[in-house]
Amino acid sequence: MSGAGQPVAIICGNGRFPQAVAEAAQRAGREVFLIGLKGAAEEAISAFPHMWVRVGELGKVFRSLKDRGIVELAFIGGLVRPDLSDLRPDFGALARLPDIARLLLGGDDHALSGLIKLFESEGHRVVGVHELAPELLVASGRITRTAASAEALADLDFGAQCLRALSPFDVGQGLIVAKQRIVAIEAAEGTDLMLRRIAELKRIGRLRAKGTSGVLIKMPKAGQDLRVDLPAVGPETIAACIEAQLSGLFLAAGQVLMLDRAGLAAQADAAGLFVHGFEATA
Amino acid sequence: MSGAGQPVAIICGNGRFPQAVAEAAQRAGREVFLIGLKGAAEEAISAFPHMWVRVGELGKVFRSLKDRGIVELAFIGGLVRPDLSDLRPDFGALARLPDIARLLLGGDDHALSGLIKLFESEGHRVVGVHELAPELLVASGRITRTAASAEALADLDFGAQCLRALSPFDVGQGLIVAKQRIVAIEAAEGTDLMLRRIAELKRIGRLRAKGTSGVLIKMPKAGQDLRVDLPAVGPETIAACIEAQLSGLFLAAGQVLMLDRAGLAAQADAAGLFVHGFEATA
Repeated sequence: MSGAGQPVAIICGNGRFPQAVAEAAQRAGREVFLIGLKGAAEEAISAFPHMWVRVGELGKVFRSLKDRGIVELAFIGGLVRPDLSDLRPDFGALARLPDIARLLLGGDDHALSGLIKLFESEGHRVVGVHELAPELLVASGRITRTAASAEALADLDFGAQCLRALSPFDVGQGLIVAKQRIVAIEAAEGTDLMLRRIAELKRIGRLRAKGTSGVLIKMPKAGQDLRVDLPAVGPETIAACIEAQLSGLFLAAGQVLMLDRAGLAAQADAAGLFVHGFEATA
Repeated sequence: MSGAGQPVAIICGNGRFPQAVAEAAQRAGREVFLIGLKGAAEEAISAFPHMWVRVGELGKVFRSLKDRGIVELAFIGGLVRPDLSDLRPDFGALARLPDIARLLLGGDDHALSGLIKLFESEGHRVVGVHELAPELLVASGRITRTAASAEALADLDFGAQCLRALSPFDVGQGLIVAKQRIVAIEAAEGTDLMLRRIAELKRIGRLRAKGTSGVLIKMPKAGQDLRVDLPAVGPETIAACIEAQLSGLFLAAGQVLMLDRAGLAAQADAAGLFVHGFEATA
């Protein structure tokens, strides 16, 4: 693991992943410093050495990293497009405003890749979960006792092809296929809302709802920078898949975040749902 | 117009289009016979020479067309995947069961194309709205007084490319783009639910909602048989676009159904929304 022994800063968006990554990094012997984004990060990050900033306080972040001699950093957790008031730039951000303005145009990929470039231009090294806490990523192969059927594997093949075709358009981190028919594609709504939509379409009879059918496929866009915006799966994802009466989940191995693998597997198995890690780049 | 003077049967799914097409065909001097699918077609089709059938009563349809000497027919209006009880085959359907079973697999395109093949194999000619009632299709160019901005035209370009990339997967009759970011892709949910989702994402702050932004693009899948399942736009579509705070609609010229063009244009203009017909194949 790179940077062992060196301190690492974790810029914390929402969810439980920032803390999980911080713990994993500590277990690996890294000293961590958490930077919580106000309005996004959970209070729980206060259990670690930390500070809070508004999204606009980029100058404060740069200064603080410099003062602490921290070169490496990671962006963990999501960030709903922030309020204008949170974006109000501090002095350090103002100085970088032309760069920042560019970041806010285009798809999410562009925004986050731009942010990485900005930190790199200041001498920082941006690392990803795959370097900092690889044990939090989905492994290849079956996670549940329940296994995917041949029909489900055929749906994986078809759906993954479709997601690859969408990659150039910077959209589609997930979709749902049932019997070779693509019934939902994820865009701005996110995975959980997409799953709830399928549950609803089955409930109102717009989709056939006899027994379980359909699989969720999650994989990053081709060429996506794994240091940013990795798809994540949690108990609410499994619950939503159960509600949508899917037969299982296919998650790109090494490219999807997952906390508490054993707990999620038990939750899925209890409902007869499979969870497979698959080689998305194969 | 082909088949002028000959009678034509219109197999009627839901919505107001079956009647509109029947009226247009009558205006063009065609004798019409409407076949209403129980549970789907509106009572209003009773104003024309008509009969009612369950989806499964294919034998009855074939017999009736033969008795009346009707060769040409058209499928107009949507059909939500029917109940199993409606699918219960009559004798004529039973005889064709292996063919019919194949129809129910795969995407909607396949099902409907298969249905056309089935009718053609019995000596029928299946025609589309573009032959029967071309005045009901969106014309090329601006329909509203309100015009699309350069930004909206750039979004059209990007979004139409994405829809073309989705065509091989038999999904995507519409999407929503805002500032070169694809925020929604239509699959099984249909256009109206997709629009409501964008309204909701803006309401809860998951999408920036300052002023109007984003365009709806509707076009058939590349290579789609225009005789089946043409996208349609009505007052509820315009209303949903307004609720989603879009700046306008781009509709594939000659490939999207539209009733009451003047009324829809007035409705859109009143909200500052543009409606453009664009050359999808150019």
